[in-house]
Amino acid sequence: MTARPAPVIGLDRLSLNQATVKHLGLAEAAALCARHGIPAIGLWRDRVAEAGLAEAAAAVRGAGLHVSSLCRGGFFTHADAEGRRAAGADNRAAVIEAAELGADTLVLVCGGLVPGSRDLGLARRIVADAIGDLVPEAQRLGVRLGIEALHPMFCADRSVIASLGEAIDLAAWFPADAVGVVVDTYHVWWDARLADDIARASGRIACYQVCDWILPLPADTLLGRGHLGDGVIDFGPVSAAVTAAGYRGYVEVEIFNADVWAAPADQTAGTVRARFAAAFGSGEPGRPGPAG
Amino acid sequence: MTARPAPVIGLDRLSLNQATVKHLGLAEAAALCARHGIPAIGLWRDRVAEAGLAEAAAAVRGAGLHVSSLCRGGFFTHADAEGRRAAGADNRAAVIEAAELGADTLVLVCGGLVPGSRDLGLARRIVADAIGDLVPEAQRLGVRLGIEALHPMFCADRSVIASLGEAIDLAAWFPADAVGVVVDTYHVWWDARLADDIARASGRIACYQVCDWILPLPADTLLGRGHLGDGVIDFGPVSAAVTAAGYRGYVEVEIFNADVWAAPADQTAGTVRARFAAAFGSGEPGRPGPAG
Repeated sequence: MTARPAPVIGLDRLSLNQATVKHLGLAEAAALCARHGIPAIGLWRDRVAEAGLAEAAAAVRGAGLHVSSLCRGGFFTHADAEGRRAAGADNRAAVIEAAELGADTLVLVCGGLVPGSRDLGLARRIVADAIGDLVPEAQRLGVRLGIEALHPMFCADRSVIASLGEAIDLAAWFPADAVGVVVDTYHVWWDARLADDIARASGRIACYQVCDWILPLPADTLLGRGHLGDGVIDFGPVSAAVTAAGYRGYVEVEIFNADVWAAPADQTAGTVRARFAAAFGSGEPGRPGPAG
Repeated sequence: MTARPAPVIGLDRLSLNQATVKHLGLAEAAALCARHGIPAIGLWRDRVAEAGLAEAAAAVRGAGLHVSSLCRGGFFTHADAEGRRAAGADNRAAVIEAAELGADTLVLVCGGLVPGSRDLGLARRIVADAIGDLVPEAQRLGVRLGIEALHPMFCADRSVIASLGEAIDLAAWFPADAVGVVVDTYHVWWDARLADDIARASGRIACYQVCDWILPLPADTLLGRGHLGDGVIDFGPVSAAVTAAGYRGYVEVEIFNADVWAAPADQTAGTVRARFAAAFGSGEPGRPGPAG
């Protein structure tokens, strides 16, 4: 990465992705953020559905929160036309939800190989086609799609879009206000081309998500994420590159980790704030939560 | 990948990496290859040391085998000068062993982050320096170093060289006959830039290793490799690209997998042959081994 000095990112740009407190319902997660002075939240569709869309929107607005992302659309790579049609319909519903919630972006996890196929090119063409089909609805409702590059270890089963460079190449086919990319440190930290690719993503970064890469990788690799500082990722250079690329949005902490999930949510929120302040130099040691 | 037709690769180019039959000593592995008409073998230094270098060289020559690779040098990224000096000495010893064995390449697994550091750039500079220090000895003894890009999930702890493109960029600093790259399907299959990078590696491919990516990934991700055909990798396009890049050497089957290791070695060798013939179109259904 570049030798650019790490930018200060204040706690006013912190967002808590609700997957970090997986066991809380939407209203509880919103209240948690409000209680800990966290100004934004990343929402998940299953929790929105559980609460009801209008009620969810009212709950986050009532808590004074901004919605930095809605997770997630995607999973486009079905073998049959019927499956692809159903995925299209589900993604159009996700766009409507993102609009209603005022989310900065609808995160797209694009899907792995087509079942029964080893053809990466086919899967990638299906993804490109599906995003192309979705863009008009996103534009109509003013929702920005965020293509998330997942770590290559998820290429077979979750996302054939496996590097930031590839996500940018795909996003570049569409207007920048309709399709951007999600930079998630967990997925892209290893990439020797990361600084160049982030620079290339200027004007296209729809969301910046952070968590740490911890060792050893747990048995369920989906859950190998840690609080900022518990792992090996050097957040400064990535944040410097993202900032230099013009990103001024929220920085979303999203941690899938069985131990984090087992901790009391107020303790987790306190740790998220403190680690964010330490990693991004906002100079506040983190305000302890009421139960933290 | 490209639409180039998959090339036929005959069984006369099959090599068995001895890690696939991990529980066999060197002489047993050499005898296994001879028994199954496998003309080449990839050796591991621990098994060579156990047999004795001169005895190992005599055993593989006696069995009529070619040595397609010696695994492995590398692990350069130590925190202290003493550790780096020791790694340098160990790698020079590996070069001597590779020369004595007549190995086509000494495979380099370069090492992860420097202990106590999150600086990927530092680790990569240490790797580059260490390879530069090793090249004169390799040239003196006529040994070709093969930089292996490992899958990005091993970036933190095993290899900061995490994509084929990066391995090529590094190798390109040195003469092509001294430093090449290892293309291992398990590590690079997911990469959207793979076809372009393999083309760029023309004249630099020191070894082509194959095994499959199986799902789900096991708890120990080092062992998530399968026999050709048991996973999701489409070997045809990769082989076509490697062939178009001028590679005419052995194709080494290297499988780390607890179930494969638990199987009788003759059965494994028979399966390796049969799957190789199926994957690379050599038209022979695989000669069953004596015990297969």
